[in-house]
Amino acid sequence: MNVEVIAIGDELLLGQTVNTNAAWLGLELAKVGGSVVRSSVLADSSEAIVSALDNVLKDTDLVVLTGGLGPTKDDLTKKVLTDYFGGELVYQPSVFAHIEDLFKTLGRVPSERNREQAFLPNNATLLHNPVGTAMGMAWDFNGKRYVSLPGVPYEMKHLAAVFILPWVQEKSKFWVQNRTVRTQGVPESELADRISAWEDALPSFVKLAYLPAPGLVKLRLSVRVPKEDAEVVKQVVETQVQALVQLLGAAYFGEGDRALEEVVGDALVIKGQTVATAESCTGGAVGAALTSVPGSSRYFVGGIQAYANTIKTQLLGVDEAALVVHGAVSEVVAKAMASGARKRLGTNWAVATTGVAGPDGGSTEKPVGTVWIAVAGPDGCRAERFQMGKDRGRNIQKSVQAALNMLRQRVVGASQ
Amino acid sequence: MNVEVIAIGDELLLGQTVNTNAAWLGLELAKVGGSVVRSSVLADSSEAIVSALDNVLKDTDLVVLTGGLGPTKDDLTKKVLTDYFGGELVYQPSVFAHIEDLFKTLGRVPSERNREQAFLPNNATLLHNPVGTAMGMAWDFNGKRYVSLPGVPYEMKHLAAVFILPWVQEKSKFWVQNRTVRTQGVPESELADRISAWEDALPSFVKLAYLPAPGLVKLRLSVRVPKEDAEVVKQVVETQVQALVQLLGAAYFGEGDRALEEVVGDALVIKGQTVATAESCTGGAVGAALTSVPGSSRYFVGGIQAYANTIKTQLLGVDEAALVVHGAVSEVVAKAMASGARKRLGTNWAVATTGVAGPDGGSTEKPVGTVWIAVAGPDGCRAERFQMGKDRGRNIQKSVQAALNMLRQRVVGASQ
Repeated sequence: MNVEVIAIGDELLLGQTVNTNAAWLGLELAKVGGSVVRSSVLADSSEAIVSALDNVLKDTDLVVLTGGLGPTKDDLTKKVLTDYFGGELVYQPSVFAHIEDLFKTLGRVPSERNREQAFLPNNATLLHNPVGTAMGMAWDFNGKRYVSLPGVPYEMKHLAAVFILPWVQEKSKFWVQNRTVRTQGVPESELADRISAWEDALPSFVKLAYLPAPGLVKLRLSVRVPKEDAEVVKQVVETQVQALVQLLGAAYFGEGDRALEEVVGDALVIKGQTVATAESCTGGAVGAALTSVPGSSRYFVGGIQAYANTIKTQLLGVDEAALVVHGAVSEVVAKAMASGARKRLGTNWAVATTGVAGPDGGSTEKPVGTVWIAVAGPDGCRAERFQMGKDRGRNIQKSVQAALNMLRQRVVGASQ
Repeated sequence: MNVEVIAIGDELLLGQTVNTNAAWLGLELAKVGGSVVRSSVLADSSEAIVSALDNVLKDTDLVVLTGGLGPTKDDLTKKVLTDYFGGELVYQPSVFAHIEDLFKTLGRVPSERNREQAFLPNNATLLHNPVGTAMGMAWDFNGKRYVSLPGVPYEMKHLAAVFILPWVQEKSKFWVQNRTVRTQGVPESELADRISAWEDALPSFVKLAYLPAPGLVKLRLSVRVPKEDAEVVKQVVETQVQALVQLLGAAYFGEGDRALEEVVGDALVIKGQTVATAESCTGGAVGAALTSVPGSSRYFVGGIQAYANTIKTQLLGVDEAALVVHGAVSEVVAKAMASGARKRLGTNWAVATTGVAGPDGGSTEKPVGTVWIAVAGPDGCRAERFQMGKDRGRNIQKSVQAALNMLRQRVVGASQ
């Protein structure tokens, strides 16, 4: 099943909003046998939308349009599509009742603007949107299905999950599998060398891609085969993944969409253990990553963002002399921060970060990108030095990933 | 100057990487008079790339291709483009010397794979990439310029800033201005009602767009006029922006790309004041936002991530009785957290968050999305209750924005 994704919105072309919807649709459609063959971004202009509809590729089965369904004046997708498919916009009292209900839960009353969202095409299947005021719409036209969804990501996802993905899965002739193996701490080209022999010996129907992100590289194995070959191919892929995981060693931390913070959280839950943070250069980002996971209160107790040296001494008990002699970015201080957090917050584990995130503050001995990370636990306190790059944001992201992976290895490896 | 942006990479179609490059290019090109008329994403396939090159729109002046220049086997952009424009790949010793130098700064040695990156087209202008191993390339062909850049965002940005943006600015016949007014705390449709009369009276050459993000709505005014009208139009836009800011009141917090954490940081620097955080439901994300800004050590001292109630009492001095009587998510506790952090970290200001981020933990009285935020400062401690939605990630993001805006208003409004 070939799919074209069309995102509508000047804000996307102008770059003031990043098109995360296309990424999500690509990912989810692939899982059910849909293949996004083109993805494009158009202006909020009826001319651009009509031209894209006129030029949909011949062998496309499904066109998913996102955006331009909001209550404001620059949103014109609904009108353009209704005209294109020869329909008319008609007021739907039941939809307006739904909009009123939604507003009520927020303690608000819909405006005249929102009433316009209850005008809907008389020639489309309406896709009920329980989480927003813009309905989805579907048209079957010249052998293709066209679905228009709101651009707000969580509304789009909700409607796609109900009205698009099951339909694609049923219609698809292909079985598609994407398995993503996640690694931390090894750069892309080193990784490629390490797995080179394995990669060369992959069966031709297994495609491999390297997907780097700050501090992480994901390796994606993908297959797309006729549905009847699914079982055999599934087994082949499983064997390949197992061999790959062996080659990766400690750099491997998990599969699929699971982030390091989820993997660490699971390990802590299984052991019934707790963790605290002591963050200098990451300023709270390690705690934020850990607590982004629902249920993290089972293992995350809290932390100290010790940005200033006075906080390192007062709240974490770091020795003032150590700060003077070794500097804040040092093995001694990183370890003292982790041990201090573990003791003062009474947890099994604590992870500490201290580094020169940049752009200023570097020296010859400790250039920008120098980061010390320490993990204190029941089996002692160990630290590691990292040399990252020049970019502050990337250095912080990499530090978070490195800290989480060090914590993971220690928690998983610990005897109790 | 019309620009087409083509991103190449299966990982983008599959959605495993979000196409932030297109967003950045849209934004930066617009600032210099370039207009992205189409943006698309293609597979790592020579067929797809050739077909896109064949179908570039007639009135496009510049085609920017990103991605597919890496050292791994799925990267084939360089080869396809070189063939398409009738050239050959030739080994360039000086480029390999540069690659060796880059590796040396990272304490590594290039592999055979990286040597392939020194093979470059003999019919293109090479665009030196000081921050990575993949060179950029430019071809002038049939009256259009084609530029191929690496897909790694900071490499792409570096090359675009040097080799594309100044060229577009010089060639463009139009003067383009985008002014983005940033607001926090007022939903899109309420905002639209509030500024409705102003919006209706806008001159026709000023386009307005609403760009919502969790906790924020950006209002973008854009104009695109012949270069000779720039001065007059600039003044008209300035007047409109001033009128808009008046209408927005406390919801307005700044212009352009400046995030709330930067605006707050500036206000603290000007007053020579400091801030601490006490974070429960945000888990460190407020501190992470504040410290994402270079130089934030001038005003951010540190904070306590008080996730468990025991940490709230032990490290922030929150009264145990208050936790029992009012619960952790309450005005009393939020204020005690802020006051405790201000006192214990010795800062002028402290901001505290406590809430039910979800998906679990809600009650009838305090459903998921209930968040209390408090700011303690030299002029006292005040708290506000927010009712957010059901989604954990969005609730955390909204809480961070609300906390930063409350802090901003207090710092800016304080008499000393």
